[in-house]
Amino acid sequence: MTQIEFAKKGAITAQIKHVAQVEQLDESIICKNIAAGTVVIPANAGHPVEGICGIGKNLRIKVNSNIGTSSDVGTLEGELEKLDVSIRYGADTVMDLSTGGDIRKVRRSILKKSSVPIGTVPVYQAMIEAGEKYGPIVMATADDLFNAIEEQAREGVDFVTVHCGITQAAISSLKSQHRITDIVSRGGAFLIGWMLHHDKENPLYEHYDRLLEIAHKYDVTLSLGDGMRPGSIADATDRPQIQELLTLGELVERAWSAGVQVMVEGPGHLPLDHIMMNMQLQKSLCREAPFYVLGPLVSDVGAGYDHITGAIGGAIAGIYGADFLCYVTPAEHLSLPDSEDVRNGVIASRIAAHAADIVRSQGKAAEWDRRMSLARKNLDWETQTTLAIDPERVRKVRSKYTVKGRACSMCGDYCAMDLVEKYLGITANKC
Amino acid sequence: MTQIEFAKKGAITAQIKHVAQVEQLDESIICKNIAAGTVVIPANAGHPVEGICGIGKNLRIKVNSNIGTSSDVGTLEGELEKLDVSIRYGADTVMDLSTGGDIRKVRRSILKKSSVPIGTVPVYQAMIEAGEKYGPIVMATADDLFNAIEEQAREGVDFVTVHCGITQAAISSLKSQHRITDIVSRGGAFLIGWMLHHDKENPLYEHYDRLLEIAHKYDVTLSLGDGMRPGSIADATDRPQIQELLTLGELVERAWSAGVQVMVEGPGHLPLDHIMMNMQLQKSLCREAPFYVLGPLVSDVGAGYDHITGAIGGAIAGIYGADFLCYVTPAEHLSLPDSEDVRNGVIASRIAAHAADIVRSQGKAAEWDRRMSLARKNLDWETQTTLAIDPERVRKVRSKYTVKGRACSMCGDYCAMDLVEKYLGITANKC
Repeated sequence: MTQIEFAKKGAITAQIKHVAQVEQLDESIICKNIAAGTVVIPANAGHPVEGICGIGKNLRIKVNSNIGTSSDVGTLEGELEKLDVSIRYGADTVMDLSTGGDIRKVRRSILKKSSVPIGTVPVYQAMIEAGEKYGPIVMATADDLFNAIEEQAREGVDFVTVHCGITQAAISSLKSQHRITDIVSRGGAFLIGWMLHHDKENPLYEHYDRLLEIAHKYDVTLSLGDGMRPGSIADATDRPQIQELLTLGELVERAWSAGVQVMVEGPGHLPLDHIMMNMQLQKSLCREAPFYVLGPLVSDVGAGYDHITGAIGGAIAGIYGADFLCYVTPAEHLSLPDSEDVRNGVIASRIAAHAADIVRSQGKAAEWDRRMSLARKNLDWETQTTLAIDPERVRKVRSKYTVKGRACSMCGDYCAMDLVEKYLGITANKC
Repeated sequence: MTQIEFAKKGAITAQIKHVAQVEQLDESIICKNIAAGTVVIPANAGHPVEGICGIGKNLRIKVNSNIGTSSDVGTLEGELEKLDVSIRYGADTVMDLSTGGDIRKVRRSILKKSSVPIGTVPVYQAMIEAGEKYGPIVMATADDLFNAIEEQAREGVDFVTVHCGITQAAISSLKSQHRITDIVSRGGAFLIGWMLHHDKENPLYEHYDRLLEIAHKYDVTLSLGDGMRPGSIADATDRPQIQELLTLGELVERAWSAGVQVMVEGPGHLPLDHIMMNMQLQKSLCREAPFYVLGPLVSDVGAGYDHITGAIGGAIAGIYGADFLCYVTPAEHLSLPDSEDVRNGVIASRIAAHAADIVRSQGKAAEWDRRMSLARKNLDWETQTTLAIDPERVRKVRSKYTVKGRACSMCGDYCAMDLVEKYLGITANKC
């Protein structure tokens, strides 16, 4: 039985207990939300990890870090280091998106080493191996696809991105749209290439029941990919994107009927004033299934700093319903991220998620900020350091200059906190 | 005559011509807005600079960089380097907030070297010099304050932050509020210390006409400081903050009557769901005077990464009415920024400003993104680099790994753009 099936029977699983404890929420609420499909716990029955997490309604917004090799760059050791960095800086889940080198070996090592749930995009392995076997990647068969999914599920992958919403109808819509950046989803491009080459429907859509069977067997959570996501501000919220979202809404309901946990992926590049509408549309069309967004990036010109364009979009998405933020690193659009990029990406997304949680959680998340502010007022640097989102970074910045007094080197002798305490007669606040 | 007086007579000044050309707007619209007080051009009559800019209604959101020494750190050379970095990376204005070393010499050098408008907070010099002369800084006289303002205006400062809204009424409000972080404004703390020590009204409020006279004489733009700004999420939008804002609204109208250009400063630390309301409130209470915001920071725990918490807040503030973003650097709350922090702060604020401009400018600002996206679709790396917000950074990231094909090292052989072009038969887009 899957988490959703247990929950429908009202059974409080070990996973629910864990999530309830971490989130300081009632077990029965989480159980109810899993049964309703508004919360998922990506936890492959064959891959027990310490850092289980729930994603969705009423829960803290989660952050995913993407790692993995490309055909140009990346080694097993390098990717395992990125896994470490991701978890150390607070990623809730990690996706292995390897497309180069020994894909299997990298995935197996990551699965073995990770203390958090692992996601993958199995179409990568299926089509890249087909390319190695037959020549062009589009020579992969439908069986190749499902075999890769089953192999990865058997090995313990907790959630898989599957671009089931790319249909021939969506491609027609794409052709008539005349986008600037047609397709920016790699998995989406693989499948569209296959569909156009063979002039056939997407196997992941046509044989969706076969996918559901595999997902059910291992309790792998499906993450319905958005192959049609806009890759530029100019293409935001257009017909192909929404055409695909309509299909994803149907597929969410079919997953629930089959006892399979499911979430939905979303854009991408969106101007600030499209974000609220996109979140509300997904929640409405997909009956409040958890929403996993890639950014959204609020401008196209931030290359080199796209962790910032993504954090701006992610924070706003979070207020209006995004439950799960896929990080964006400073290397996005330019190169494979290195470990430093991974750290910056994770922290930026965590800031976005927390800023939205302050609003969503009705005061619960802001307790962290309150304690930090008290330490700030009290010029208690040790507590500020411990409470900061990245204590190591705070130590590094603080150590740059010699500080003469109680304050920091920005205000030195003229610290507002210090001055006001002196003249207003307000002494250190107590927690 | 000041810009606002010329504008009231319908005279198109050289400054208006320049701003109209840069913003691609009709001169008469800018003239009308300056006359109405909804746009300012901070341009001291005695300090001609190449990079004049307008701030306010219908204009591109501007970004300010804060530099300057502290009593702990900072040299003339170092601050001049930060001036260079600020301008090179796109700051529209720079404020010299020096409080250490030879404050006069640093300011004069910055004024001489800068190609953009310069702002200051004259109360720093007034009170620090008083401290050196009399012992405690609060021994400064009202004359000391006005003399410092006049000296700096005479030397060519284009805009000054003056905390005129800190009244005894606002201090009473502060005392009854029991904030966590009472006062985080350095200038605010100076004045509150003075007011409490002498048990007198704020000279900048009591003798506001004297201030207006100086501002009028040199056409210095007043930036009405928010000494009561919230310094933590917990203190956001409370009584002292709004009490001060009410006073600032009155002072805006008195400045206009005196033919003095004026803008209003705003928070500070605000949770995401307070930002829209704060922007609307300022616009309403201050009759659409340009709004200059410090952040806003959407969480307190981002120390080390506060350029990101500030960019999230700044972008949203921009959509709802902020006209001018004061940058926040990664060193905020921890130390004086170094040149690298300055670069990161300027770029993060520019991203926030541009993301909001995409929404505010009805398509005009998004033309930059459209061209970038075309280059991205065409895998035209040279154009992408040139169009990126920081071309140097893009080159650095791109050079990290060897790229084998046309794509970047993230997707290598499996670039979505490449694949789709091949299978969808869509060839390179034309601009």
